[in-house]
Amino acid sequence: MNFDKTLRSKLNRIPSRGFYDRETINQIIDEALYCHVSFAQNNQPYIIPTIHARMNDSIVFHGAKASRMLKHIAAGNEVCVGITIMDGLVLARSLFHHSMNYRSVVIFGTGELITENEEKLNALKAITDHILPGRWEDARQPNEEELDATAVVSVKIEEASAKIRTGPPIDENSDYDLQVWAGIIPLSYKFGLPEDDPELSPEVKMPDYIRNLLK
Amino acid sequence: MNFDKTLRSKLNRIPSRGFYDRETINQIIDEALYCHVSFAQNNQPYIIPTIHARMNDSIVFHGAKASRMLKHIAAGNEVCVGITIMDGLVLARSLFHHSMNYRSVVIFGTGELITENEEKLNALKAITDHILPGRWEDARQPNEEELDATAVVSVKIEEASAKIRTGPPIDENSDYDLQVWAGIIPLSYKFGLPEDDPELSPEVKMPDYIRNLLK
Repeated sequence: MNFDKTLRSKLNRIPSRGFYDRETINQIIDEALYCHVSFAQNNQPYIIPTIHARMNDSIVFHGAKASRMLKHIAAGNEVCVGITIMDGLVLARSLFHHSMNYRSVVIFGTGELITENEEKLNALKAITDHILPGRWEDARQPNEEELDATAVVSVKIEEASAKIRTGPPIDENSDYDLQVWAGIIPLSYKFGLPEDDPELSPEVKMPDYIRNLLK
Repeated sequence: MNFDKTLRSKLNRIPSRGFYDRETINQIIDEALYCHVSFAQNNQPYIIPTIHARMNDSIVFHGAKASRMLKHIAAGNEVCVGITIMDGLVLARSLFHHSMNYRSVVIFGTGELITENEEKLNALKAITDHILPGRWEDARQPNEEELDATAVVSVKIEEASAKIRTGPPIDENSDYDLQVWAGIIPLSYKFGLPEDDPELSPEVKMPDYIRNLLK
């Protein structure tokens, strides 16, 4: 299924890089570890980085009850969510044609507070599973007090578009003879070697779902 | 020098993670490869990822003349810039105390269009140097036509704050006996092996400033 190309979501610049199908958009949302939420109060823009998870056609966020962003979303205001995965530097022979390879999504929607405890737990599990599958079952799950202190909101993905650039640089025909190195320098987030908490009991071993991240 | 803690920039949640000194803020701006720009039109929020460079107390962006974001900034409207560097997953014994290690900056300011060619070139060089020092001198620099097609804006950093979390997880005292692995999984952007443009002449070798990225 495709999202509509709206005035808000349609790519005007280089439309060939625009994608509106849910599969492409969902794949980027699901791969990115975090996102940035943009919102406006009296036309004053704000931006907050946060972790997220997609649950079907919505995206969920969590945080402290006092969070300005979560209160704003809970009140039903418009938000715009930006998710960007950088895949590489694109070095052309001319500086003008330098670029980045990336996959980004912009989502427009309005949200609501999740109030029911079971739904809250489902969303928190989705956020945990998004970052580190296996962790939810292993660590101590939230008790009632912790759940009360946590606000969870869900934003329906009403409009969305993805913008993707892949492949080598495209130079002016007249520049291909220049003696300048051209190509791609790949870029990606990598996990490093896990570091034990200094307070960790020596008998607790690192679980496989963490070890697997490093493969 | 410190930025003022204003209603817009002051951290309300976990104030101990807030920093307002220019040195801390500038270091994060300079290390991050890209940022997200948030702006509002009729209270509708938008977000756009872009590369940037800091020039003294300003941050510069570039793009096509037709860019909605650049036109909005050039018109002197408020923008909010978010810059986030993820440093790791923080795994506590309880899910409630899970966190991320990160260094993020939020900048508030208004911008202006850079119209003078020499100033434009300086800003474009700053953006190139920010991503890949050495490239500006090596590749073909913009000609007049290319410079005309490029919009460059400068946003004065009027207010800014950084938010930083470092170190191991902090658990409830009563949870330290749980048999759950706790610690940090470091996370960072890494460059991969550069890939030659398929059209690259065999006599052009990879320059040292690219080779050095991989060290």
